[in-house]
Amino acid sequence: MTEHVLNPGKIHHRWNRDQPPALEIRPGDVVVFDTAEVSGGQIRPGVDLKALLPLNPDRIYPLGGPIFVEGARSGDVLEVEILTMDPGAWGWTAILPNAGLLPEDYPDPYAKFWDLSNKQDTALRPDIVIPLDPFCGVMGVAPEEHGEFRILPPGRFGGNMDIRHLTKGTTLFLPVQVDGALFSAGDCHAAQGDGEVCVSGIECPMTFSLRFKVQKGRSIHTPRFVTRGPLTPKYDASGYYATTGIAPDLMDAAKGALREMIGYLVEAHRLSREDAYVLSSVAVDLKISEVVDRPNWIVSAYVPRGIFR
Amino acid sequence: MTEHVLNPGKIHHRWNRDQPPALEIRPGDVVVFDTAEVSGGQIRPGVDLKALLPLNPDRIYPLGGPIFVEGARSGDVLEVEILTMDPGAWGWTAILPNAGLLPEDYPDPYAKFWDLSNKQDTALRPDIVIPLDPFCGVMGVAPEEHGEFRILPPGRFGGNMDIRHLTKGTTLFLPVQVDGALFSAGDCHAAQGDGEVCVSGIECPMTFSLRFKVQKGRSIHTPRFVTRGPLTPKYDASGYYATTGIAPDLMDAAKGALREMIGYLVEAHRLSREDAYVLSSVAVDLKISEVVDRPNWIVSAYVPRGIFR
Repeated sequence: MTEHVLNPGKIHHRWNRDQPPALEIRPGDVVVFDTAEVSGGQIRPGVDLKALLPLNPDRIYPLGGPIFVEGARSGDVLEVEILTMDPGAWGWTAILPNAGLLPEDYPDPYAKFWDLSNKQDTALRPDIVIPLDPFCGVMGVAPEEHGEFRILPPGRFGGNMDIRHLTKGTTLFLPVQVDGALFSAGDCHAAQGDGEVCVSGIECPMTFSLRFKVQKGRSIHTPRFVTRGPLTPKYDASGYYATTGIAPDLMDAAKGALREMIGYLVEAHRLSREDAYVLSSVAVDLKISEVVDRPNWIVSAYVPRGIFR
Repeated sequence: MTEHVLNPGKIHHRWNRDQPPALEIRPGDVVVFDTAEVSGGQIRPGVDLKALLPLNPDRIYPLGGPIFVEGARSGDVLEVEILTMDPGAWGWTAILPNAGLLPEDYPDPYAKFWDLSNKQDTALRPDIVIPLDPFCGVMGVAPEEHGEFRILPPGRFGGNMDIRHLTKGTTLFLPVQVDGALFSAGDCHAAQGDGEVCVSGIECPMTFSLRFKVQKGRSIHTPRFVTRGPLTPKYDASGYYATTGIAPDLMDAAKGALREMIGYLVEAHRLSREDAYVLSSVAVDLKISEVVDRPNWIVSAYVPRGIFR
């Protein structure tokens, strides 16, 4: 087993199976990555967000990679063991126009900056403290199709999955699409709720290390993963306050649950509407409570009570 | 405070604000309910399920109630504290044609019966053991509209919400629609995953007790609830195996994640396709991982690893 340190300058901003590997490794090897936050230096304290938008597409999603894994072939499974996740000293969460789950309710941009320097938690307000639970928003292999593709949409190759439980100790399984797998990662979040509702988590620079293995003769259709213990031990000791959205469409139900949650946070915790949306994005989980009681499905939004001091 | 025992014969099978109360209570009172499983005695071991279907609509959803709560007025909030949940000795889970999340994959009826007599857990197979986490599938107040309404679809009055976290210790808040609230409950489940994907949980008779209070001068649009501790402490110590569905529509993503989960359960745990669907309904949780990375959303299906011995 060899530990490689990927040169932080080895980044790319598009999926493209034809770009040359940044590093070639063998199964069992570990790679240490060091990536910038997702805007690639565009969003930072003091910037005029309104003047900055739209973000420069050539700078967003700086991903470390691609990593060529020896012996990986299309149809194999790439196993990615998440060993360490070490967020940088600061982060941001932004509401961006025409993005997120409630673009119609939030036409204006807004940014919140976070102090992550204690490595354990970060405060929205002195009495609202969010534990850090860092993960990569993007982990993926190169897509099968030839050409250049934006990073934003995830696919069966993984990519921008934004699955909050891909934390340290979890193992991710990706369906290899091209020889060598050509794995890349980045877009790191110090914390995020299931849903990532305002379109960003706590976006931050991160140093992280991953171990790669190849499973031959096994095929999966979409990404899978296995976690080693409780999903939310840093959040759930005091239980949750939950709101519901009830509608014949899951998207409408999700929007309804989120609007009720924002209403609760504004009323009970005297947050601004913007901070309530941001808090929902970084700490509220969307669950599908039922999807069978026709014609009305229920999505519920859960905020952990332990974040309120 | 008075504890009332609701006569188990006081049941109804439709929502109707004009039916007379089964019991009148004061805020702070406790009511003990005792309800049959949701089929009202139709589905039981040995029955020919195919010949039985469709179920008699006049017997399904036997709800205890309605309970008239003194002083509750339209626009108030009814607070329902869940004190005890004591499942009966047996239960069932059924796949019913034209119902559930995957009706196109499962055209034929199928039933699994469960031994609940030890009150702690129940086995799908000797090596697959599901902890009991009982709750009422239905808790609701009478809807505002006049007329008779089927129990199946939930609404802002609550009703057939099938939210698995409405367990002992949780407090539910319902928006009162009519004077007296006219609360009813039933359709009890000994266990269920978020989603209730095959259309039934572990359906069982249950004795349960609830304490009612009225919050005046406070209004909510849809039901809310507050839990007192970790959501899944009986399930999560060993972590989860998770599959993903990735699609531009949340329903398609949910179906995709579930199909991958069923494939995993069949392959890794050698379950029949029917038992894999049933197990998914009673123990697998659907989460909205992200709903902002246009155009592809991700729903993930999580099975607790601790159920596999």
